[in-house]
Amino acid sequence: MTESTTTIFEAAKAEGRSLLTPAEARALCEQYGIPMPKDATATTADEAVAIAGGFGYPVVLKIVSPDISHKTDAGGVIAGVADADGVRTGFETIVANAKRYDANARISGVQVQQMAPAGREVIVGAVTDPSFGKLVAFGIGGVLVEVLKDVTFRLAPVSNEDARRMLESIKAGQLLNGVRGSAPVDKAALAGIIETVGRIVAEHPEIEELDLNPVIASEHGALAVDVRIAVNFEPRHVPNRPPHDEIVRAMNRIMKPDAVAVIGASAEEGKIGNSVMKNLINGGYEGTIYPIHPKAESIEGIKAYKSVKDVEGVIDVAVFAIPAALVPNALKECGEKSIPGAVLIPSGFAETGNVDAQRELQEIGKQYGVRLMGPNIYGFYYTHKNLCATFCTAYTVKGQAALSSQSGGIGMAIVGFSRSAQMGVSAIVGLGNKSDIDEDDLLAFFEQDDNTQVIAQHFEDLKDGRAFAEVAKRVSKQKPIIALKAGRTAAGARAASSHTGALAGNDKVYDDVLEHAGVIRAKTLRDLLEFARGVPALPTPKGENVIIITGAGGSGVLLSDSCVDNGLSLMKMPDDLDAAFRKFIPPFGAAGNPVDITGGEPPSTYKATIQLALEDDRIHSIILGYWHTIITPPMVFANLVVDIVEEMKAKGITKPIVASLAGDVEVEEASEFLYQHGIPAYAYSTEIPVQVLGAKYKWARGAGLVR
Amino acid sequence: MTESTTTIFEAAKAEGRSLLTPAEARALCEQYGIPMPKDATATTADEAVAIAGGFGYPVVLKIVSPDISHKTDAGGVIAGVADADGVRTGFETIVANAKRYDANARISGVQVQQMAPAGREVIVGAVTDPSFGKLVAFGIGGVLVEVLKDVTFRLAPVSNEDARRMLESIKAGQLLNGVRGSAPVDKAALAGIIETVGRIVAEHPEIEELDLNPVIASEHGALAVDVRIAVNFEPRHVPNRPPHDEIVRAMNRIMKPDAVAVIGASAEEGKIGNSVMKNLINGGYEGTIYPIHPKAESIEGIKAYKSVKDVEGVIDVAVFAIPAALVPNALKECGEKSIPGAVLIPSGFAETGNVDAQRELQEIGKQYGVRLMGPNIYGFYYTHKNLCATFCTAYTVKGQAALSSQSGGIGMAIVGFSRSAQMGVSAIVGLGNKSDIDEDDLLAFFEQDDNTQVIAQHFEDLKDGRAFAEVAKRVSKQKPIIALKAGRTAAGARAASSHTGALAGNDKVYDDVLEHAGVIRAKTLRDLLEFARGVPALPTPKGENVIIITGAGGSGVLLSDSCVDNGLSLMKMPDDLDAAFRKFIPPFGAAGNPVDITGGEPPSTYKATIQLALEDDRIHSIILGYWHTIITPPMVFANLVVDIVEEMKAKGITKPIVASLAGDVEVEEASEFLYQHGIPAYAYSTEIPVQVLGAKYKWARGAGLVR
Repeated sequence: MTESTTTIFEAAKAEGRSLLTPAEARALCEQYGIPMPKDATATTADEAVAIAGGFGYPVVLKIVSPDISHKTDAGGVIAGVADADGVRTGFETIVANAKRYDANARISGVQVQQMAPAGREVIVGAVTDPSFGKLVAFGIGGVLVEVLKDVTFRLAPVSNEDARRMLESIKAGQLLNGVRGSAPVDKAALAGIIETVGRIVAEHPEIEELDLNPVIASEHGALAVDVRIAVNFEPRHVPNRPPHDEIVRAMNRIMKPDAVAVIGASAEEGKIGNSVMKNLINGGYEGTIYPIHPKAESIEGIKAYKSVKDVEGVIDVAVFAIPAALVPNALKECGEKSIPGAVLIPSGFAETGNVDAQRELQEIGKQYGVRLMGPNIYGFYYTHKNLCATFCTAYTVKGQAALSSQSGGIGMAIVGFSRSAQMGVSAIVGLGNKSDIDEDDLLAFFEQDDNTQVIAQHFEDLKDGRAFAEVAKRVSKQKPIIALKAGRTAAGARAASSHTGALAGNDKVYDDVLEHAGVIRAKTLRDLLEFARGVPALPTPKGENVIIITGAGGSGVLLSDSCVDNGLSLMKMPDDLDAAFRKFIPPFGAAGNPVDITGGEPPSTYKATIQLALEDDRIHSIILGYWHTIITPPMVFANLVVDIVEEMKAKGITKPIVASLAGDVEVEEASEFLYQHGIPAYAYSTEIPVQVLGAKYKWARGAGLVR
Repeated sequence: MTESTTTIFEAAKAEGRSLLTPAEARALCEQYGIPMPKDATATTADEAVAIAGGFGYPVVLKIVSPDISHKTDAGGVIAGVADADGVRTGFETIVANAKRYDANARISGVQVQQMAPAGREVIVGAVTDPSFGKLVAFGIGGVLVEVLKDVTFRLAPVSNEDARRMLESIKAGQLLNGVRGSAPVDKAALAGIIETVGRIVAEHPEIEELDLNPVIASEHGALAVDVRIAVNFEPRHVPNRPPHDEIVRAMNRIMKPDAVAVIGASAEEGKIGNSVMKNLINGGYEGTIYPIHPKAESIEGIKAYKSVKDVEGVIDVAVFAIPAALVPNALKECGEKSIPGAVLIPSGFAETGNVDAQRELQEIGKQYGVRLMGPNIYGFYYTHKNLCATFCTAYTVKGQAALSSQSGGIGMAIVGFSRSAQMGVSAIVGLGNKSDIDEDDLLAFFEQDDNTQVIAQHFEDLKDGRAFAEVAKRVSKQKPIIALKAGRTAAGARAASSHTGALAGNDKVYDDVLEHAGVIRAKTLRDLLEFARGVPALPTPKGENVIIITGAGGSGVLLSDSCVDNGLSLMKMPDDLDAAFRKFIPPFGAAGNPVDITGGEPPSTYKATIQLALEDDRIHSIILGYWHTIITPPMVFANLVVDIVEEMKAKGITKPIVASLAGDVEVEEASEFLYQHGIPAYAYSTEIPVQVLGAKYKWARGAGLVR
């Protein structure tokens, strides 16, 4: 921050303004080298004429008033003024208009501006999001942004490479390449401005919103014609965030404890403190359990203590099953006992409006260095320690998927789906009110947890979206992260005071930030669950070439539709490969892609074509469409697929394979068999298997593993 | 068609042109009263100056050449010419440009046109679609149509009311209402032009494409500035279509036959002719079966005949299970026996490239009045006659859903899903190559079939999309029609020669035409199946007010998202109703909508709130979000819901209810129980139940039953 930029903000702050003057805003942008048309402010018509004469015609005249934010709405802008007479009458007109618009508006003068050359109007802006902080926005001006909300966001600052990608990520991006004879715009210049705006807001947290609107982009550069900067000098809430190694150390003790205390352990059937005890015991937890109870000698056959402070050994985590009112005191005792984590099952805190009680817990946690999970949660599972620290039912199918939910209901759906699908799980975690531990703490733990290969998270908000995005960007390079953001469609609540502002707070911010962080966004609960199950089952594809092999032409068409819907590229079939497939299929079958082997074929045809697809290096992923026939019954198909996949694996060949099975109910058993052998397979669906493959590709692309 | 319009087309035909000249196109539009700017063609610069003087300045100059289609690309347009000198130099410039563009272009002169006032540029056009015939298109000009494909289609002609609706059905439609201070455009004038274009192309089938581009719409009217008309005088294929009552008479005999012949009936296990016989017998068909076999005395215990001609009694339908080569002769015999329908299971026709063989069947069918189902199909089921005229497995769960598929694989998926879900079905029909009987024949049958209450169809193409749309529009007023159009994403194959042309052939045509015909479009196979199952289970809603009652706040958020995704309106809760709900729920529960009763509530809370929602007239549909707890276990919930629904039904209260169940695996049984009692319910999904309700609403709105 240079001295003069400091001065600019100090003036605004001293005067209690929430907007910089146009001259201040312009000065700031010029300091950062954003190209702008020549510009000066006149206080009289004569002065305006003199300035315009110096710039050369045509010019634009704009009212300057600290009280008028949207100049056009106030009749305060006249463009294309061609001569001195025009400047003179224009000056008087807009001053008169502005006074009619707001009789009390203070009018500082009229801005005289060199007129930009013809070009494409775009908007570059920045907003402040309560969760993500400073965001840079880019869109094409006019109706595209205002009516169709065709805009893209990134966390500020943005690299030049990311700025360039923003140009491609809007729907109307191809306009910048020139359409119908218009020349392509200077993308480097545009990306430069985006990058600079990111730097400006990153260096000046007091900027609430920044609009460069319009920026005129032409073949020969880009010029920011108008700038508007809103400021806010109130101190901002900076989320508390322990250092990474501290997080990981505490999370490892909490998630993989050697000793668990159950505060409020109970012998009484139906009590939460009893369910937790039973789940720990029946789940097969092999660490030490310390029931804490004011009177009991023992609970469920295990010696009980009056307080955690009475326990001699080390305790890694305390699970709370006591009423809300008793929590603070028990939590202090945990602090005094140096227990690094508290799992706060009790409700009755912020979710019931009792915000103060929750704040009290946060303060105790901070004071004693106890990390808090919850309150208002079902607890958590960590299967590889046989740990069911929850009042729900035990879950014991070990595997690679770690799931978490903000809501208890969604957590129960996760448990039910997992059990029903026999999905291998490493952890299921309830986050509830997220008074402390949140999604990015879990990411930091699962990142280094060798038992976890995929992370699926349901949330309604992110208390620190920026931290989440930063951690996710790193973790997603190694392990797929799937997110279900609920509340997608809620209308953005905060009133917006600017163009760019009106665009933030909408779901597109989550879309863009999550995508940029390499997170796969699930649109529905079922998608979250299916992706958590299917994505880790698939090996990482080595390239974009997808092939469909199908016994039913009709499935082939629907599977092709799904490929397009899910961003998958159907391989353009090389002639030699086409000929190789044709050797196996009837003359009226269609090679090309989909490879339609036709419905009446024996197992050998499925086998030969799948083997060919596995063996040929140019093919990277395979989608199978099975059609139930007497000649190749469902389980025959399923077995032959598993056999050929195993055979190829022994030769070192692995590729993602998914399957869609059309047929009578026997295809359900065959689908299950395939899934249990690492091939995500679905009966009566041509879309879910392709969605799962699409999710794997999204991750692999984000992690830089394909292309 | 007036005399002068006839002359216009005759000139183009005589000269072998595929384009009308601008003067011809303009004359045609003027005949129909489309408002256009004043216009004349000059052959010299002097003449152009004289014309412009007569109109008044500014004017637009445009090259006139039968060889130049896109004038702008040829540098053949100059707008905003302000005086005589400008006209003179402009004339020379565009003639020179045109010659540089195409040295051989014949240049007829330069068109001088009055310049339209400022306004919104829109496009009104018409195209000829191979399946739907003449379609009218509307979009907002420039990037919205060209880059974002924001355009809407209707079958021509269009009523004025439909034309007005087209203005609302594009994404950027609100632009026409004026944004940021611009005045709303004259929608009546615009709708008038759309309606007129529809009439023009309906009355002139030789028009292949028509572009009014741009039409300038302003506050005070709309003016078609440029017109381009492509013609095609080749005779068009007119699909053969029997009269409605003839279709219904034949289809009733085919679908509900009293006597079935099986041509190629076989005693040999594994043969198609044996499977068909067994399915007929084991399925419980009570009509007469006539096995046809060259030698056998009897098959599966039933007396066999050498030919259908040897049978004395009346035969309603013949099922073919013989090789392709034998079909023509057997089909002739069916004709001679006056059998009204042939179910052609055999393959080896158009799908293998053997188009001639299929044409032969079509000709025989036509000659003898035999309607053909197939060839290349699995046959069909009609459960209310216990009829399984197929080589697949028998299906016997009687119900109200009629399903059809173009593809055999999809047909098998229908059978499997139906059996797995115990879905009540009236018919399942394979249409295969659709040599004759197609989707609209089935619609005509199911329309008057009292056993059918919902019709779900999978297809890849419509051989006569116009007939389908017309029949569907009528039928959908009575019974919901659900369509899965496969091949959604295939790139439009035909080369387009105009703006509007480039937009047709895309999937948006199906979207718009199906929606306008009241058809619910399923995006995926699973959607088709779930909608076929769920839509008839739900009573028709009486209004748009949807309420969510949930035990899990997290489900409430996701269910709300799904409501928005599926076009459902969450009721704004009146104060008195809010207070009424609050009486039943804990103080920290949230009334409003969703009504969050919180997770720890007993069955009585669910019961009281559901009863209130059923009893209050202002609520029209209910979405339940259940959360598995010990206090209200899944089957307790399911039973209480069914009880209260039955109780209210006895009082004459029925409303659509769907349910989302979050919990451990017991919720699967509870969901099934609810579904079997008329409440579409899904475990681990917050979206599918809402999609099903959304589909019901889509239908009810299209049929004019809500709002």
